[in-house]
Amino acid sequence: MKTDWIAVDWGTSNLRAWALGDGAILDHAASPEGMGTLSRDDFEPALLRLINGWLPRGKVTDVIACGMVGSRQGWVEAPYRAVPCTPLDHGELMRVPTRDARLSLRIVPGLKQAAPADVMRGEETQIAGALALRPGFDGVLCLPGTHSKWVHVSAGEVVSFQTFMTGEMFSLLSTQSVLRHGMGGEGWDDAAFDLGLSEALSRPDRIGAKLFSLRAEGLLNGLSPIAARARLSGLLIGVELAAAKPFWLGQPVALIGSEGLSRAYARALTAQGAQPAVLSATDCTLAGLAAARNKVTA
Amino acid sequence: MKTDWIAVDWGTSNLRAWALGDGAILDHAASPEGMGTLSRDDFEPALLRLINGWLPRGKVTDVIACGMVGSRQGWVEAPYRAVPCTPLDHGELMRVPTRDARLSLRIVPGLKQAAPADVMRGEETQIAGALALRPGFDGVLCLPGTHSKWVHVSAGEVVSFQTFMTGEMFSLLSTQSVLRHGMGGEGWDDAAFDLGLSEALSRPDRIGAKLFSLRAEGLLNGLSPIAARARLSGLLIGVELAAAKPFWLGQPVALIGSEGLSRAYARALTAQGAQPAVLSATDCTLAGLAAARNKVTA
Repeated sequence: MKTDWIAVDWGTSNLRAWALGDGAILDHAASPEGMGTLSRDDFEPALLRLINGWLPRGKVTDVIACGMVGSRQGWVEAPYRAVPCTPLDHGELMRVPTRDARLSLRIVPGLKQAAPADVMRGEETQIAGALALRPGFDGVLCLPGTHSKWVHVSAGEVVSFQTFMTGEMFSLLSTQSVLRHGMGGEGWDDAAFDLGLSEALSRPDRIGAKLFSLRAEGLLNGLSPIAARARLSGLLIGVELAAAKPFWLGQPVALIGSEGLSRAYARALTAQGAQPAVLSATDCTLAGLAAARNKVTA
Repeated sequence: MKTDWIAVDWGTSNLRAWALGDGAILDHAASPEGMGTLSRDDFEPALLRLINGWLPRGKVTDVIACGMVGSRQGWVEAPYRAVPCTPLDHGELMRVPTRDARLSLRIVPGLKQAAPADVMRGEETQIAGALALRPGFDGVLCLPGTHSKWVHVSAGEVVSFQTFMTGEMFSLLSTQSVLRHGMGGEGWDDAAFDLGLSEALSRPDRIGAKLFSLRAEGLLNGLSPIAARARLSGLLIGVELAAAKPFWLGQPVALIGSEGLSRAYARALTAQGAQPAVLSATDCTLAGLAAARNKVTA
């Protein structure tokens, strides 16, 4: 195996790495050793556990990492860059000293926005990847997830962005709140999702009154756990779309996310008359890390 | 000690009991053995651990209980009564058989509303108590808490009501979500509370975009943990007040809650031009249980 360089996506709860060579993915590995589980001295051993077998002998290998690994609680803090700016700047990749001389490690810094105050780490790399995959894209990127991001991109720069806690709210409400008693199962119910979505989009100001209804509907009217879960998802995504309307209304929109989430957001946006393109999150991450690496070697 | 009867407020996470005699409180006891911690056979022993010393010899003592003890997961299910109806009906108090012959136990049933689907257990007793303390009250009762209730009361009946998960959302977001990193402390910040309140009341549809800002403001602009917590409270209460406007606008409003919560809601409502009366939650619970007991003995 001839590894040219290694791409690393290091988030709060997961670590993923790819060995790249001759422009192709040679190998892939992942572990649950996310930033949130590690203290400063644990990062290098955790990375080596995953990539040690990929490193050629007698040679220094570039490793480019993005995500929460560059946060204050991470390996080394890579200070945020301020928007408006390009998603990547090779001069500002953060070099990280390693004990193992086979590694040449750099971390992609996140982006910050002064007003309204907002931050991202990891998504800037996916945005760079989307621009590499769709050169000249001008419009809005939506990155659904634990903390969904809406990003206005123009002339290759991130102009502004906004974070929504939709995924985290869904997880807390469906597994930790009183609603958990009436939720569950692995199935899905498109009609219930659509109902929640349209309730929230038509009256987003009434979201506070809609949530407990899911519990009461289960107790009184036999709302099924699968329908309740899909309707909660529709309500929360609907409130997000209502507040994100200034981003997506009348703009070209591209989604960057996991398959399931992108499907739900695409369904919701399509019902509102938008025609979102869908990009794979992993493809964008890899394309973005490759763009960062090209800047290093250029 | 001459106990005439015993009042019990038995919620999901707490059990509270009062010994009453000659129209006065003779003693009070509490334990963390809430409904959520008990299986069916545990209820009677848990109650006796608290009240055994109060029971006169050779005599049957009335015990009137309200709250989640009457839910399907409780001691015995007391089926919901449907609104519109009076908060109490002595014919529908649920008699519970006990092994200990010294007890004559009854549970106050909760209320249900068909559309929009909603339920309450425990609050119906506080509503009855408020009507006992303020005879002829016609207007709106607000019972802030884990699951806040807004209740339209007219001619002694509960006409309609609506539940908001405000307290539970505050707890989940401030202690379990990413926001927890920038929250904490025991202090309070009225100005931050007012800011969150006015943000949410003026644009409740944008709540989804406001939450993550608290984290970003902490990272970028040094928003203090105490201010962040108070602002989150303001945002969530503001979204509740926005959706509950059809209840409180132009109506006499009375608050039934703990001191701290009632203070926050009173401040918020007063800023909106309402002039809420404030009743103590414990006073209302006791007055309601007394009203239920009077119906039994009448």
